[in-house]
Amino acid sequence: MSVSSSYSSNPLTWQLLFINANIATMNDGANSYGAIENGALAVTDGLIVWTGSMTEIAALDISDNANLQVIDVAGQWLLPGLVDCHTHIVYGGHRANEFELRLQGASYEEVAKAGGGIVSTVKATRDANEQELFASALARMQALQAEGVTTIEVKSGYGLDTETELKMLKVASRLGEQPGIEVRKTFLGAHALPVEFADNADGYIDVVCNEMLPAVAEANLADAVDVFCEGIGFNIEQTERVFKAAQQHNIAIKVHAEQLSDLGGTALAAKYQAMSSDHLEYLSEGGIKAMRDADMAAVLLPGAFYFLRETKLPPIEALREHGVAMAIATDANPGSSPIHSIQLMLNMACTLFRLTPAEAIAGVTIHGAKALGVDDKVGSLEVGKQADIAVFNIEQVAQLCYQYGVNPLTAVYKAGEKVA
Amino acid sequence: MSVSSSYSSNPLTWQLLFINANIATMNDGANSYGAIENGALAVTDGLIVWTGSMTEIAALDISDNANLQVIDVAGQWLLPGLVDCHTHIVYGGHRANEFELRLQGASYEEVAKAGGGIVSTVKATRDANEQELFASALARMQALQAEGVTTIEVKSGYGLDTETELKMLKVASRLGEQPGIEVRKTFLGAHALPVEFADNADGYIDVVCNEMLPAVAEANLADAVDVFCEGIGFNIEQTERVFKAAQQHNIAIKVHAEQLSDLGGTALAAKYQAMSSDHLEYLSEGGIKAMRDADMAAVLLPGAFYFLRETKLPPIEALREHGVAMAIATDANPGSSPIHSIQLMLNMACTLFRLTPAEAIAGVTIHGAKALGVDDKVGSLEVGKQADIAVFNIEQVAQLCYQYGVNPLTAVYKAGEKVA
Ligand SMILES: [Zn+2]
Ligand SMILES: [Zn+2]
Repeated sequence: MSVSSSYSSNPLTWQLLFINANIATMNDGANSYGAIENGALAVTDGLIVWTGSMTEIAALDISDNANLQVIDVAGQWLLPGLVDCHTHIVYGGHRANEFELRLQGASYEEVAKAGGGIVSTVKATRDANEQELFASALARMQALQAEGVTTIEVKSGYGLDTETELKMLKVASRLGEQPGIEVRKTFLGAHALPVEFADNADGYIDVVCNEMLPAVAEANLADAVDVFCEGIGFNIEQTERVFKAAQQHNIAIKVHAEQLSDLGGTALAAKYQAMSSDHLEYLSEGGIKAMRDADMAAVLLPGAFYFLRETKLPPIEALREHGVAMAIATDANPGSSPIHSIQLMLNMACTLFRLTPAEAIAGVTIHGAKALGVDDKVGSLEVGKQADIAVFNIEQVAQLCYQYGVNPLTAVYKAGEKVA
Repeated sequence: MSVSSSYSSNPLTWQLLFINANIATMNDGANSYGAIENGALAVTDGLIVWTGSMTEIAALDISDNANLQVIDVAGQWLLPGLVDCHTHIVYGGHRANEFELRLQGASYEEVAKAGGGIVSTVKATRDANEQELFASALARMQALQAEGVTTIEVKSGYGLDTETELKMLKVASRLGEQPGIEVRKTFLGAHALPVEFADNADGYIDVVCNEMLPAVAEANLADAVDVFCEGIGFNIEQTERVFKAAQQHNIAIKVHAEQLSDLGGTALAAKYQAMSSDHLEYLSEGGIKAMRDADMAAVLLPGAFYFLRETKLPPIEALREHGVAMAIATDANPGSSPIHSIQLMLNMACTLFRLTPAEAIAGVTIHGAKALGVDDKVGSLEVGKQADIAVFNIEQVAQLCYQYGVNPLTAVYKAGEKVA
């Protein structure tokens, strides 16, 4: 028996073996799919222990391994379980009313009067109990899981008071107990200014840093801290105060920046070794270099770009030239992207942002994982990584980006366990 | 027992009764949803025989009707079964390769060399057998059915020879034997010029009129005849020849017109009492008036607009002012709209075309039915119409347009029969 793969693994210890598989390992970032055609992939104890060709498998004697479960995927493609690295799926209510009013020609004031905007979502989220929030968020998460998502980030940020922010993160935590999914929780207390603190953003940031964040950290409810650094959000000084507080609590940092203007939030985040900066339509060359030097991921959100009818594209070409990892996510939220489909984001990333299919797929696998700081564990199909696998009935990977609506997902495995 | 509804119907003859329903009857075109809140709807022999309020129901004695099946939808919304009035879902192969090449920067010539464009779809469609075409089209149709579609139009047009055009229409006919769906078949032999007739469009139109159309009519395989009237399609004279031939066979007329330029195809179609003109980005005021006078439907295709990154909007405001019924459809096809989701079209119609939600919903119900000439039978929930009903778990109808990805469809009835 000989194992010619670069990794030595005893086939007698394998528990699961996918055969006749085309494998998009995504082990080469966005440069290619790292494809192994007509290949196989072995799993032991939830980890990938071997990948290689069917020719190599034919040369092995696996018949002695009576416990081995062999799965013949008959030429289907295996991809890393998909990662949706930026969502706000926990919220109360919806904003269909405001959507309709706007299309009927109502002015901004009329919409505000009718109770529109983020204020309405904050109110509905505060009013909802944990079970209600869980039920609606679960439906959203399950829609994403049905498309192959096995890792999702969920942000708080519609509570804007300690109690509700904690409630949202507890819901996120409960979502993570569902089968087949890992939930990464992000505390986004600095999402918007609550009405109680009108004209007192500094006072609100005091609460975020001195009350909310300690409570969140104490309850171990956040894997990361995020800030909406924007003219309509928080300024650079306020953003930095939150980053410093996060650092004191040893929590990783992310930022919503340069969506509507170039405040320099990305460069600031780079100074604090942030994992990602997200949106980025107005990102400058300086910001891009700062990201590159800090090895941050750029999270692009085509759903919000589409829904807001934004015309300014993120600086894709410059990000590409500087080798910044581009992640793609749904930004699923009730205001600017009420769209719960990662497969649609693949199509939009290509159609609207002109990413190549390989870049888009990397964006929802290895680069999405990088934006969450979990790329050591998931995001590619490589030896040593968790066996998070999405099986698609397609002939070539680009089909996932090109066509939409007929979901080609046929199976999902999370850490080697079949979930769907 | 008293029935206060405008329509007299004996409750003892009812077979099916939906109670505690919110009903978007769509009996008023795009002006509103024709909503009956807290209402009920009765069905006998597959037809809607009564609609009214729960108060009226409470006043009736239905306990004597032992055969009545009562369905309590607990406040969900009933909509007319959705109509996708413009699709090309029968085709061989896919064009992911060409999609990827373009995004990798390949030139038009390189893509053509690699076998891209409609030519590749024609080849793959000719090469595929009927069963293969049926299987792939079925998956596409089922994706649409899963969103509430109960009536779909399917065009030929990737055969461009008599044998393959007939094969496509036979597949469409077989699709219509599936449960829960009515398929309207459109012969689109004049879709593109096949390579065998390069530089001889008139010669090809001879074949369309004198060979294909008689064969299609003989086999009773078309409910309508369509032409792609465009610079890259067929000119006005050629289009008119096909219309005349259709008229001789007594088959209804539709047209793809004014998508890329204003050739006057719509006005010509109006002269021939066409049911609809489709695409319409470049439609002139004169064309709009011709449509209005001929009572044609304007079929808008936001998926193709999105996928082609078109920037010229159809003349929505003028169509609205002139009272032309606007239908919305997927245009599902491998080249310009590989998108099989009518719910996404609702979102895109509002987001990209700025239709109101009521207009968009009318576009996939009563106006979609009008574009197919079946609005006497389906498209609204009114007494005398077929009981094609989609049940959605939503609080307000506009949610169907505003949010996307969490499919709120909970049940579908076709002519009173539960399909899903
Ligand atoms: Zn966000
Ligand atoms: Zn078409």
